[in-house]
Amino acid sequence: MTLDFHYRLKATDGAARLGEVVTARGIVNTPAFMPVGTAATVKGMYPAQVRELGADIVLGNTYHLMLRPTAERVAQLGGLHAFMRWPHPILTDSGGFQIMSLAALRKMSEKGVTFRSHIDGSYHELSPERSVEIQGLLGSDIQMQLDECVRLPASREEISRALQLSLRWAERSKRAFEAQPPGRALFGIVQGGDAPDLREVSARGLVDIGFPGYSIGGLAVGEPQDVMLSMLDVVTPILPTDKPRYLMGVGTPDDILESVARGVDMFDCVMPTRAGRHALAFSRFGKINLKNARHAEDPRPLDEESDCPAARDYSRAYLHHLIRCDEMLGSMLLTWVNLAYYQSLMKGARIAIGEGRFDDYRAQVKDGWVRGDVPVRS
Amino acid sequence: MTLDFHYRLKATDGAARLGEVVTARGIVNTPAFMPVGTAATVKGMYPAQVRELGADIVLGNTYHLMLRPTAERVAQLGGLHAFMRWPHPILTDSGGFQIMSLAALRKMSEKGVTFRSHIDGSYHELSPERSVEIQGLLGSDIQMQLDECVRLPASREEISRALQLSLRWAERSKRAFEAQPPGRALFGIVQGGDAPDLREVSARGLVDIGFPGYSIGGLAVGEPQDVMLSMLDVVTPILPTDKPRYLMGVGTPDDILESVARGVDMFDCVMPTRAGRHALAFSRFGKINLKNARHAEDPRPLDEESDCPAARDYSRAYLHHLIRCDEMLGSMLLTWVNLAYYQSLMKGARIAIGEGRFDDYRAQVKDGWVRGDVPVRS
Repeated sequence: MTLDFHYRLKATDGAARLGEVVTARGIVNTPAFMPVGTAATVKGMYPAQVRELGADIVLGNTYHLMLRPTAERVAQLGGLHAFMRWPHPILTDSGGFQIMSLAALRKMSEKGVTFRSHIDGSYHELSPERSVEIQGLLGSDIQMQLDECVRLPASREEISRALQLSLRWAERSKRAFEAQPPGRALFGIVQGGDAPDLREVSARGLVDIGFPGYSIGGLAVGEPQDVMLSMLDVVTPILPTDKPRYLMGVGTPDDILESVARGVDMFDCVMPTRAGRHALAFSRFGKINLKNARHAEDPRPLDEESDCPAARDYSRAYLHHLIRCDEMLGSMLLTWVNLAYYQSLMKGARIAIGEGRFDDYRAQVKDGWVRGDVPVRS
Repeated sequence: MTLDFHYRLKATDGAARLGEVVTARGIVNTPAFMPVGTAATVKGMYPAQVRELGADIVLGNTYHLMLRPTAERVAQLGGLHAFMRWPHPILTDSGGFQIMSLAALRKMSEKGVTFRSHIDGSYHELSPERSVEIQGLLGSDIQMQLDECVRLPASREEISRALQLSLRWAERSKRAFEAQPPGRALFGIVQGGDAPDLREVSARGLVDIGFPGYSIGGLAVGEPQDVMLSMLDVVTPILPTDKPRYLMGVGTPDDILESVARGVDMFDCVMPTRAGRHALAFSRFGKINLKNARHAEDPRPLDEESDCPAARDYSRAYLHHLIRCDEMLGSMLLTWVNLAYYQSLMKGARIAIGEGRFDDYRAQVKDGWVRGDVPVRS
């Protein structure tokens, strides 16, 4: 039996929400962090490991997958879940954001966007309809409408033009999506840059069209955190309480806690995986740079109380050594550490919201970061 | 209670030997393949995974470890076993071979060798005594004497000079090793290039000195396989049957089977790990290059009958995709596949020797390679 896609709000604590996103592939406990599996792999992790950390869902990038191995090939091979051996829910983006940041010779029109691949220069077209088609071929459980995300700072006119185009594309995406099997969902994406009134226009426009979930895009693109949070303060109260809200591409652990406090349910970010490949560990003591020479003779693990073997069992001296030698295992272990930390952060948030003490949780976690890394025993 | 190091011959089948090398850290079932953990990591593998594949022992490289993180630091951190989280036996080489192949400004004398690091140009000295000291600091269970390995082709005089130097160094190494705790062993290394009579001189010289195990060095350095095997035919009959024989740096699965047939007990080679990082899989169907476009749409795993999840569960199309995208997981999975294949090859050999059918086993395995990769179902 295929379940219809829906969101179930289980508890609130201030604006923070505990809930479940139900998809045909399984349940996503929210607030949720989605590890990024750009090219059908969460870099440096076996899929079973990602699951064991408590991730209910991962993200795939439409831009990368449409270029390699192509959506048609993934479909022919049984879909993205089978291809990457991740039988749980998958969310895909629309491809639009990566086209803006990676592709060459981009050309935007009412119809869609044309571009050349950053890999081989080949020519491609992406329309709202084609984006939904690709995401359908991939078999994505939660799909995104194609939108236009403007770089900030941008003029009011530019932000407004882009959000209106995105609203028209939202309608086209919704129509294109109707052909897909039940249990999947298409999310509309709120744009509007850093202008509160334009954010409101975008959010209301999308709610009028009606989606099973709402993404908030165009944030965490370099603006100060308080700008991002003030946009959430405008947007989340407009969004229906019985639909999930997904803040795209966010973010640091602090960004996530602050956004959960404002009623966001879903997050994704390359930060834990990318940092893991660059010697940076996230922990309850804050960020720890393992490249630093102070770790060279430190026999302590990153966090002896962690459930994650990578954080608990390997010495800082060993991690430092692996990084100095550019050994694959260094990236593998720190990616594992970081995804484990992000998942534990979300699990803690879910428990705290359920128990009506999210503010305390947030304060405690932040206090741990401020106190910083434990000193070397002397 | 610490066990004394010893070898127990359990069965023979022709010249092939089934046995156990007993060390303070545990038993090594032979014939054994030792995965190479150059810089205190088997590249791309968690240590627990290496163990699960059936490896009883791994190899560490003295040259790399003396430069980074240094033997003194490893000792201070509790030894190599604790450092790399491998509580089972470890074999280390003497450092000599890598100095010859990697270091700059090498200078050889009766006393030892001086060189500059390939990493930062720093100056170092290695003598037979210092090599044993370093291996002792690492806590290695099976250590190698420092020797001089000449490049082939070389003149008789040059080969003879190097083997005589190596014999004098063997004696010095043995004396230096006496200070180490029981349960560990130092192996002498047979040299003699491609000259049968010089190999004999070397082997008899080492047996006269007396070691708990014998390595055969200076082979698999570019000479044809029949030359290598003819050297084994000369050397192994000279070596005592109650001591293990280790053929250094060998080799292909075929090299290994032929050497087992000639009475070799232990092997190490970077081939399975290095090939795994270069898209090449070893399998019972022979070598398979996953870079090849014929795999791009192939939903079959590498070997659906394999016990190794990497070989059994992931499609060739997915492996091909990961390699094309230069994804870490591609190297991780193929390294896993290859080490699993090498370990299964050794396990098969051990069982076959015990049952007195090693010749049949070798023929069957080779027949599988000759038949080649299974065709795509049509």
